[in-house]
Amino acid sequence: MSDKSPVIVDLKFIPDEVDAALIGAFPGRDIINLANPAHADRDLSGIDYAVVWNPSLDLFSRAPDLKVLFSGGAGVDHILKLPGLPDVPLVRFVDRSLTTRMSEWVVMQCLLHLRQHRAYEARAKKHVWEDLIQPEAADITVGVMGLGVLGQDAIRKLSTMGFKTVGWSRSKKHIEGTETFDGDQLDAFLAKTDFLVGLLPLTDDTRGIFNAELFSRLSRKGAFGAPVFINGGRGGSQVESDIVAALEKGVLHAASLDVFEKEPLSKDSPFWEMDNVYVTPHVAASSDVKALFAHVQQQIDRLESGQPLQHLVDREAGY
Amino acid sequence: MSDKSPVIVDLKFIPDEVDAALIGAFPGRDIINLANPAHADRDLSGIDYAVVWNPSLDLFSRAPDLKVLFSGGAGVDHILKLPGLPDVPLVRFVDRSLTTRMSEWVVMQCLLHLRQHRAYEARAKKHVWEDLIQPEAADITVGVMGLGVLGQDAIRKLSTMGFKTVGWSRSKKHIEGTETFDGDQLDAFLAKTDFLVGLLPLTDDTRGIFNAELFSRLSRKGAFGAPVFINGGRGGSQVESDIVAALEKGVLHAASLDVFEKEPLSKDSPFWEMDNVYVTPHVAASSDVKALFAHVQQQIDRLESGQPLQHLVDREAGY
Repeated sequence: MSDKSPVIVDLKFIPDEVDAALIGAFPGRDIINLANPAHADRDLSGIDYAVVWNPSLDLFSRAPDLKVLFSGGAGVDHILKLPGLPDVPLVRFVDRSLTTRMSEWVVMQCLLHLRQHRAYEARAKKHVWEDLIQPEAADITVGVMGLGVLGQDAIRKLSTMGFKTVGWSRSKKHIEGTETFDGDQLDAFLAKTDFLVGLLPLTDDTRGIFNAELFSRLSRKGAFGAPVFINGGRGGSQVESDIVAALEKGVLHAASLDVFEKEPLSKDSPFWEMDNVYVTPHVAASSDVKALFAHVQQQIDRLESGQPLQHLVDREAGY
Repeated sequence: MSDKSPVIVDLKFIPDEVDAALIGAFPGRDIINLANPAHADRDLSGIDYAVVWNPSLDLFSRAPDLKVLFSGGAGVDHILKLPGLPDVPLVRFVDRSLTTRMSEWVVMQCLLHLRQHRAYEARAKKHVWEDLIQPEAADITVGVMGLGVLGQDAIRKLSTMGFKTVGWSRSKKHIEGTETFDGDQLDAFLAKTDFLVGLLPLTDDTRGIFNAELFSRLSRKGAFGAPVFINGGRGGSQVESDIVAALEKGVLHAASLDVFEKEPLSKDSPFWEMDNVYVTPHVAASSDVKALFAHVQQQIDRLESGQPLQHLVDREAGY
């Protein structure tokens, strides 16, 4: 038996993907994948590490000796609220792949709205060949809220595609070629924004921030006459009844939502059926599971060789 | 009456867009917009300039004194085949906006296939919350055929989005960071290509080039097991019966088509109904009509001040 601590894996991802990614992962260590029923009664005491995403509620009582907890995704709000969360370092998942996947989703959603994809799909369905007056990316200002790694990468790629960009974050960030706003400059930011992209962490400050009052302050001078709301961040930052009402009243022109107040999205949510809403099931930046395990291995190596852990969550700030 | 030659406008675009763009265009000159029935019997002799896209077949007999002909779009193949085409300089439309619009379309189509948009739309329609195994852009090599202004801009933007890229053109082109192939190296190019993007002009060499034989030489090692074909160039370069058969047999995984052998696309084309095909009505790079008139004005200014015309079509090469 190895003298290295085993790693507990409790990830509510696609099981086959986790299994495939575990092949060759954590060399020299036992891997305890709790998706495997064989581990249902296993003694988890004395184990140092766990990698989790929506873990079982009894995990922390079963594994009382964890030294480090690794989040399976970029967002950690659900982990910070877990009952019995031990007071140990919590490491966020930061990865090139996760960042570029989020930007793929953000840029695609902006292009879908810009290029009037749903309108062309509706015409195609009726076999109708008809062109529409077509604004170009340079006619649209995309405003990104949240200027961490994800927000900055999205802005760089949106700019390359020709969109004008502005950014807002709690604390001031400087981004070459993009006007940025911070803290109480939200009004000025919103007044310039035609497409609003949410990439905020979920904290006490951001809960419900995307609401009727905020939507009413967005630019209405854009090419589509009303703004578009795109949320790839956290569902808890949006007020869904306000989004529905804003879409119905024309306060919003359209929306793209990857995250929801409650996930999975309820079968009877109006979003599924709305003509001007794109729904994706929290897959904008699905973690690449292989990359996740490589990242966890790297942090374990750092810790065990006496180096500090990276990407630690600040529990006060909530992200 | 102005002593400057009038400009004939014969553009089968959206009439309102042409009218709006003509406000303030060509100062000091008569504008003869043939979309206006008032000009049906007008004498067009002695007029130097015409801006055309799908012009009336009697235009050249009605306007026998044209000195320069301006194409309303980037492609000129249909103009070169017009009966009675006068032997005068033919100027192609090259414009920042036209290029960036084409890249918007190309990048959006690549992202739609990468991100399995139709599969998620089908699930949304059934109110089903389910994630799919998701390759990232770096897992896909996009091969672009045609490395003119449009192809090079598309490659730059696809690379920024994280796709691997390769390029092919008739004559060798060097593009920083992208492996390029020319002439008879088509096999090597195709063998590397997961998503094939067509941005070729229509010439004797390219007519029907996208056919069953070519599709069979594309990579089948990509994340989706079979290649994707995306054509934003010219419909005459594709064999549509071969595309349908390749999609049905799984030789192609999916397609995005903005151009067709015969436009408008026939009401009974199978493409409208195919689950794995995106159809757009030749709008990938709709000309910005204001930009078109500014470009024509600029070339007229050059000519009348003794400078050479730019963007002249080489009738031998066909583009």
